[in-house]
Amino acid sequence: MDILRVSTTTDLAATAGAIAHGITVDGAAEIQVIGPRAVNQAVKAIARGYVAASGIDVYCIPSFATVHVGAEDTEEERTGIRFQICPRHDVRRQAEPPVLN
Amino acid sequence: MDILRVSTTTDLAATAGAIAHGITVDGAAEIQVIGPRAVNQAVKAIARGYVAASGIDVYCIPSFATVHVGAEDTEEERTGIRFQICPRHDVRRQAEPPVLN
Repeated sequence: MDILRVSTTTDLAATAGAIAHGITVDGAAEIQVIGPRAVNQAVKAIARGYVAASGIDVYCIPSFATVHVGAEDTEEERTGIRFQICPRHDVRRQAEPPVLN
Repeated sequence: MDILRVSTTTDLAATAGAIAHGITVDGAAEIQVIGPRAVNQAVKAIARGYVAASGIDVYCIPSFATVHVGAEDTEEERTGIRFQICPRHDVRRQAEPPVLN
């Protein structure tokens, strides 16, 4: 599963789309952010209105994460927030619509 | 169930404690915030390290909410974020510790 990185300038609809895609393909999605405004951006993308538009109800489990930022020689550790995002129903096992003859 | 209001200056440990209390008593807790920094504060309180310290694993469902702020004559509508916070296991049905004779 890829970890989505969301910043203050990340498009909400694109993030919601990436969440829906991750859930459909992998059964869950993960977002990692650093800083209050990026946390806010991630929460808004997760908030039901957006992702629910794809027919997927989600919940999330936020946790603290140590994130390495910068190039190798100037790398520094920052504390970020990681959101594990799961569907409230298994979207992968969703039955195919019945074939009408 | 009371709705907890969290601002940028709300103490994280106190919020985590209020979440744990709400979950233990009512089976769930609800936090309402306005503004990016208050969203960040709420997420940090929810993040596993804090609430898990009370032995409760939680998940949350963020959604947009219309919030009325100010006194009656100067009241205005703001869009906030509401977090519904639920335990990942039913803490109310937890068995009493065995009595040792």
